[in-house]
Amino acid sequence: MALVPDVVKKLVTAGWEVAIQSGAGHHAAFSDAAYSDAGATVAPDAAATVAGAGLIVSVNAPAPDDLGLYPDGVVLLSFFAAAQSEATLRGLAAKGATVFSFDLLPRISRAQSMDALSSQATVSGYRAGLTAAEHLTKFFPMFMTAAGTVPPAKVLVMGVGVAGLQSIATARRLGAVVKAYDVRAAAKEEAESLGATFLDLGVSAEGTGGYARELTPEELDRQRAALATEVGLSDVVITTAAVPGRKAPVLLTGAMVEGMAEGAVVVDMAADSGGNCELTVAGEVVDHNGVHIVGMANPPSGMPTHASFLFARNVANVLGLMGPEGTLAPDWDDEIVIGMCVLRQGTATSSAAVELLGGTTEGSGS
Amino acid sequence: MALVPDVVKKLVTAGWEVAIQSGAGHHAAFSDAAYSDAGATVAPDAAATVAGAGLIVSVNAPAPDDLGLYPDGVVLLSFFAAAQSEATLRGLAAKGATVFSFDLLPRISRAQSMDALSSQATVSGYRAGLTAAEHLTKFFPMFMTAAGTVPPAKVLVMGVGVAGLQSIATARRLGAVVKAYDVRAAAKEEAESLGATFLDLGVSAEGTGGYARELTPEELDRQRAALATEVGLSDVVITTAAVPGRKAPVLLTGAMVEGMAEGAVVVDMAADSGGNCELTVAGEVVDHNGVHIVGMANPPSGMPTHASFLFARNVANVLGLMGPEGTLAPDWDDEIVIGMCVLRQGTATSSAAVELLGGTTEGSGS
Repeated sequence: MALVPDVVKKLVTAGWEVAIQSGAGHHAAFSDAAYSDAGATVAPDAAATVAGAGLIVSVNAPAPDDLGLYPDGVVLLSFFAAAQSEATLRGLAAKGATVFSFDLLPRISRAQSMDALSSQATVSGYRAGLTAAEHLTKFFPMFMTAAGTVPPAKVLVMGVGVAGLQSIATARRLGAVVKAYDVRAAAKEEAESLGATFLDLGVSAEGTGGYARELTPEELDRQRAALATEVGLSDVVITTAAVPGRKAPVLLTGAMVEGMAEGAVVVDMAADSGGNCELTVAGEVVDHNGVHIVGMANPPSGMPTHASFLFARNVANVLGLMGPEGTLAPDWDDEIVIGMCVLRQGTATSSAAVELLGGTTEGSGS
Repeated sequence: MALVPDVVKKLVTAGWEVAIQSGAGHHAAFSDAAYSDAGATVAPDAAATVAGAGLIVSVNAPAPDDLGLYPDGVVLLSFFAAAQSEATLRGLAAKGATVFSFDLLPRISRAQSMDALSSQATVSGYRAGLTAAEHLTKFFPMFMTAAGTVPPAKVLVMGVGVAGLQSIATARRLGAVVKAYDVRAAAKEEAESLGATFLDLGVSAEGTGGYARELTPEELDRQRAALATEVGLSDVVITTAAVPGRKAPVLLTGAMVEGMAEGAVVVDMAADSGGNCELTVAGEVVDHNGVHIVGMANPPSGMPTHASFLFARNVANVLGLMGPEGTLAPDWDDEIVIGMCVLRQGTATSSAAVELLGGTTEGSGS
């Protein structure tokens, strides 16, 4: 849910008029009454919700069929992967719409409070850690009981971005022994600060003058073999290498999974974009020789109240920049405004949109 | 699974011959090959497994229909709630069988390593904490993010036995703020040692001479009202008041659940014995006005590898007492042997068995 009652209240105080479709908050445990108490108009259906709207806020890009209801010249704020939403993009261009996407937010410190990719990755990483514990047929923590000592679970987190760090933190909270791996050496310190051991695969890409050099085919093989060994020693592997709008890279081959013990668990956070594991099926748990591969589909939706809470704050902070007085008035010289823009009054501005629709690139995004 | 490969190996070394039914360990991620490597005979079916057995070890009492395969005079070791297994009890009595039940193990320090009720409650309590986190649409830990601060979840654990303490520990590990409640004042210190706040309901049952006095109806009402208030403030309530072989007491009424916020979660660990919450359905998640009531059915089965690991060690420790040389030779003067005995060569010995079959009570159990 793109707005929560708390944030609606703030927006209304700032001067916005807010309409919410009846029942839209139900899954996230926000009732119509809570929205209406916060000052929103609760509209009976989609048509009434968007009628006359100057700005439409949603989590993801709308379906092409929904656009018929949208006013001409409307402004849209959401995650919007142009390459995956070509029909919607064309429909919005035809309406002279303006589209801002969280995917394209510049990674600058002033934009941190608007960073919905990070806030949702925080939720996803936490959920992945929990999901791993839920599916493992063993304890995460070590237990010393009268009947004997249970060793702690061994967890390997592949990909140490925001989501990977949260997975590490959650697995550590639950008492697991955690190893982490990332191709970026800079990730080492962050992973270690959360109590994980950073994998050293015995091959250094350190080149001359501080630059990374390309690995030789033999070195790559050696690296893959070392990784396969670590995977085989793990009770749990959590993979987090998703790239918005692109197919996820394969980190775990079928052969690597076959090297894992019966009862081991793979949690694949990149299932929606094809998966980091060759055997992943989005939204399903695949049993491969007793190894369970969990393809997490839309992980934030598993924890909708707080996922929405954070997303709504990101939205409010974007609106604080683009319309602090309750009316949209984006400053087209601001790099955040330019960076997030996919479509400006029907004209493609992001590189992905320009590629699909033609036009000149103003933004720096993909 | 009542035995794991590790423990089979120890028993075989001690002189036991062990037969396992093919596929029996699959769910707990123990393959036939692992059992056979450990020295067990893997039998193709139930008949071949129990043929000629002097001792049959299982987690729960067998179904009456399975008894046809059991040798006369066999010894059974398992959880065995006589009152819930009357037909099985009669069938075993007719065979002149001997039955030892973990339910009746005396609570003495020498028996701790055999205490399967405690080991399985440890598993159940941990699982309940995880299940609560999985179902809550919010974070358990507090998060301070660029987009805003997420407060920690508020968890109330009702019933502070072994399972309740593990639920407290797991919820605390995940960063929740935990309150605990138990009618036994002695539970206060244990709950507090794990970081929970023990509820003071404003009514003391402290009587003269250190004995508890009975509460007046007004005091009971006051206590219930205070508890209802605490329940209403909680994101999660975990109830753990199960009594083996008896119906679970109702701790949470429908009215108390109706006082909880939309999106709140109840995890009922006593679902199999009727539930601590009036609205619980075993094995299902009931949505009551947006509050989710999770009726955990057989919680240890959700984590079969370690549940089996601990149970098998409890079994091995009982056999270490009753047959250290690889043949059953119980010392009928030992209070553990007497205490665990339900049926001795077809004659009822526990009070519950005597009640059903007649005879003289030798044991102290129920």
